[in-house]
Amino acid sequence: MTTSASRFWRNPDAMTFAASVDDFKSGRQTPRDYLERCIERYQQREPVLQAFVSSDFAAARAAADAATRRYREGRPLSGVDGCPVGIKDIMATADLPTQMGSPAFKGWQAGHDAACVHALRSGGAVIFGKTVTTEFAVGFSGPTTNPFDASRTPGGSSSGSAAAVGAGIVPAALGTQTQGSTLRPASYCGAWGFKPTLHALHLGGVHPLSATADHLGVIAASLDDCWRIASRIALAAGSPGYGCMQGAGALPAALKPRKLIRLYTRGWTEIDEATKAAFESAVEALRSAGIGIVGRDDDPRIAAFEDALEAGFDGALDIVAHEMQWPYRGYIEKYGDLIGTRIHQLITRAATITPAEYSALLDRRRTVQTQCRALAADLGAEACLTLASSGPAIEGLEFSGSRTFVVYGSWLGFPAFSMPVLAVRGLPLGLQLLGLGDRDGELCAVARAVAQCLG
Amino acid sequence: MTTSASRFWRNPDAMTFAASVDDFKSGRQTPRDYLERCIERYQQREPVLQAFVSSDFAAARAAADAATRRYREGRPLSGVDGCPVGIKDIMATADLPTQMGSPAFKGWQAGHDAACVHALRSGGAVIFGKTVTTEFAVGFSGPTTNPFDASRTPGGSSSGSAAAVGAGIVPAALGTQTQGSTLRPASYCGAWGFKPTLHALHLGGVHPLSATADHLGVIAASLDDCWRIASRIALAAGSPGYGCMQGAGALPAALKPRKLIRLYTRGWTEIDEATKAAFESAVEALRSAGIGIVGRDDDPRIAAFEDALEAGFDGALDIVAHEMQWPYRGYIEKYGDLIGTRIHQLITRAATITPAEYSALLDRRRTVQTQCRALAADLGAEACLTLASSGPAIEGLEFSGSRTFVVYGSWLGFPAFSMPVLAVRGLPLGLQLLGLGDRDGELCAVARAVAQCLG
Repeated sequence: MTTSASRFWRNPDAMTFAASVDDFKSGRQTPRDYLERCIERYQQREPVLQAFVSSDFAAARAAADAATRRYREGRPLSGVDGCPVGIKDIMATADLPTQMGSPAFKGWQAGHDAACVHALRSGGAVIFGKTVTTEFAVGFSGPTTNPFDASRTPGGSSSGSAAAVGAGIVPAALGTQTQGSTLRPASYCGAWGFKPTLHALHLGGVHPLSATADHLGVIAASLDDCWRIASRIALAAGSPGYGCMQGAGALPAALKPRKLIRLYTRGWTEIDEATKAAFESAVEALRSAGIGIVGRDDDPRIAAFEDALEAGFDGALDIVAHEMQWPYRGYIEKYGDLIGTRIHQLITRAATITPAEYSALLDRRRTVQTQCRALAADLGAEACLTLASSGPAIEGLEFSGSRTFVVYGSWLGFPAFSMPVLAVRGLPLGLQLLGLGDRDGELCAVARAVAQCLG
Repeated sequence: MTTSASRFWRNPDAMTFAASVDDFKSGRQTPRDYLERCIERYQQREPVLQAFVSSDFAAARAAADAATRRYREGRPLSGVDGCPVGIKDIMATADLPTQMGSPAFKGWQAGHDAACVHALRSGGAVIFGKTVTTEFAVGFSGPTTNPFDASRTPGGSSSGSAAAVGAGIVPAALGTQTQGSTLRPASYCGAWGFKPTLHALHLGGVHPLSATADHLGVIAASLDDCWRIASRIALAAGSPGYGCMQGAGALPAALKPRKLIRLYTRGWTEIDEATKAAFESAVEALRSAGIGIVGRDDDPRIAAFEDALEAGFDGALDIVAHEMQWPYRGYIEKYGDLIGTRIHQLITRAATITPAEYSALLDRRRTVQTQCRALAADLGAEACLTLASSGPAIEGLEFSGSRTFVVYGSWLGFPAFSMPVLAVRGLPLGLQLLGLGDRDGELCAVARAVAQCLG
């Protein structure tokens, strides 16, 4: 029998940033010292990990030196000043190329920073490098390996960002999520993953897949790091969804939830006993801490909500396929087989969906969003609780893992965290909290409390 | 005294497309014949008009020949097959450069088609050329002149698109509108202008200004041409707002409104007596046709709505300035004085707006949207009626005209038409219909009926 302790995860390699800021202020260490540790870790791990596609350490060192001077003068630019960050390679950067994980964009230069990159850079963050993405965040996988077992996938599509954080190379990295691309790799790589409310964080300059499902995501070594990065982007990038991030800036105080809705979705048919046991351990620990956990057997309204999520599941990918028509139909015309088979398949699928069917899919989603809000209010529940992936990272690099557990949150556009608190067979596994749209700050406060209960 | 006849406009140069489609089908003329007439008109008018920044007539002729073959085989691709269109030069095109009206983007190649361009091209439309825009659709004016008086502005920012349609070079052209950039130039150039509901038409590949105020717009020689172009984009570009364009495809049957709300906004202080008289002539003609016209003096709720519009007016530009921070802050850092002074001013203005203030501006807008819907329902009114500009085109090329009359619709994100039905001192002036968000098809039907009443 597995001991309870082994079901909870600690990443010995985690390289948090927030914990070092007081040292920067007092001069006990500098952002340049911090960066050098990151580079050292990169040199140790990158040959096997292969998390990065490009870097410019001379530029990174210059940025860290500038941050060092600002802390010395008592004038840091923001909560992320001096923070090394990895940038998913579908996000435009003014200096490094942006290659989309696609041979069609080999060496392509965007000429400017994406909104998220500009927000971080102008806040003093140090752009450490561009991280491996699956092809356009939806197609074939890159070479990145899992930081805890190189025979396993790091998850996708934000593969390099999650692996780099999990391996302790950088404290934080940007990802995106259209179906499962931030929370799943975060879960596999023992990192915090945060997918905010749809459009809470500006997507300008991020290569698009799906207008109503693309989310900017953050992967980080701690919740504080996650929130700092997301807050900086929310506050500095002029996004209309800024209001979702209530109290953006300082990490919200922990808010112990009264009640969490436990979701049994189709993912439960995909997981093994050890994974179930790890989840049950967490449920028990939360119950012991006085948090109510309710599920479909406790209330028919929860069962009805789960049924509605299931009914929306396949439609979620239809929405993505329909919205992907631009620009991918044009890419297929222009680049042919340089574009991977999965993208060809999705564009073929799109041709079977009429605009009226697409419109009905959007209507159904709105109905379930309303249902979810009403359910949470009726039950007095703050969030839903489930897994962030169907177990720990799977063997092999080609398939980046099931999206089952995370697609619901992407479809709803509601905020979700993957919390790196579970362990199965010595590998990390994320516990997912799924909250209500526009209440990202509250969900962060709940996540903080839940992590404390499991700490 | 001006005769009543002179207050209504007929454009002798108008080059409509819809009227030729039956000829294409019967073989009486071909899309290639049609294109050659456009090119001939271009050669006559362009030296003074200066509506285009680039063209590739060899490619346009090849596209028109392909359309000719399809009509001959009885297989046109869509309602816009063979239609020559002008493309505002902030929209990405795979072949012609996309130069944003800015020296910073001189010769820049996007490498792909914007969603709207791809939708048109894949429907058989003939890309006639890229049209002059003011700098990034917000800064300094280009060289384009008004087609009816070369000493006057064509309006901005979709200057070249409106001038090319007004001069009868092309039957339709794409524009954008963030404050007044489609309806104002359409009004000045005697063309139909259509600004749909916010996000009804896909903005992918269109250079951004403001995430919650940028609209794709259509400028065309007839309402039918307008609707064909907008419908093709709505149906083929995978836009989430597709549902707004109810019945996209065929031109909706005319729907004579029961009641129109006449708006007296601050624009009324800007206009001269001849402009007022032209508007009053239209009001009288509509009343004679049995359409009820109600204004602020008839109902205190209308007065309250107008007051709310006024209260939102300055905030509309604050929203734009805040949202422009990306990418323009980065452009100013990179290009300095290559970026015009108005953009510098707006970015300076943005620095004075906190995220909380911005969020409050968005909240206020939502409140007024709700108020407008409730008012229309209470009164049984289908749309608001006002002018599309503060009189006909003004003298000079530098200032592209007041945005007063059109900013309300941009701010609300509700659909609006500029109808080229009025004339003042021999120059065209648009009558504006402003409808309810997501009901673009109904507004088109109302516009058709109103035009018939004034015909």
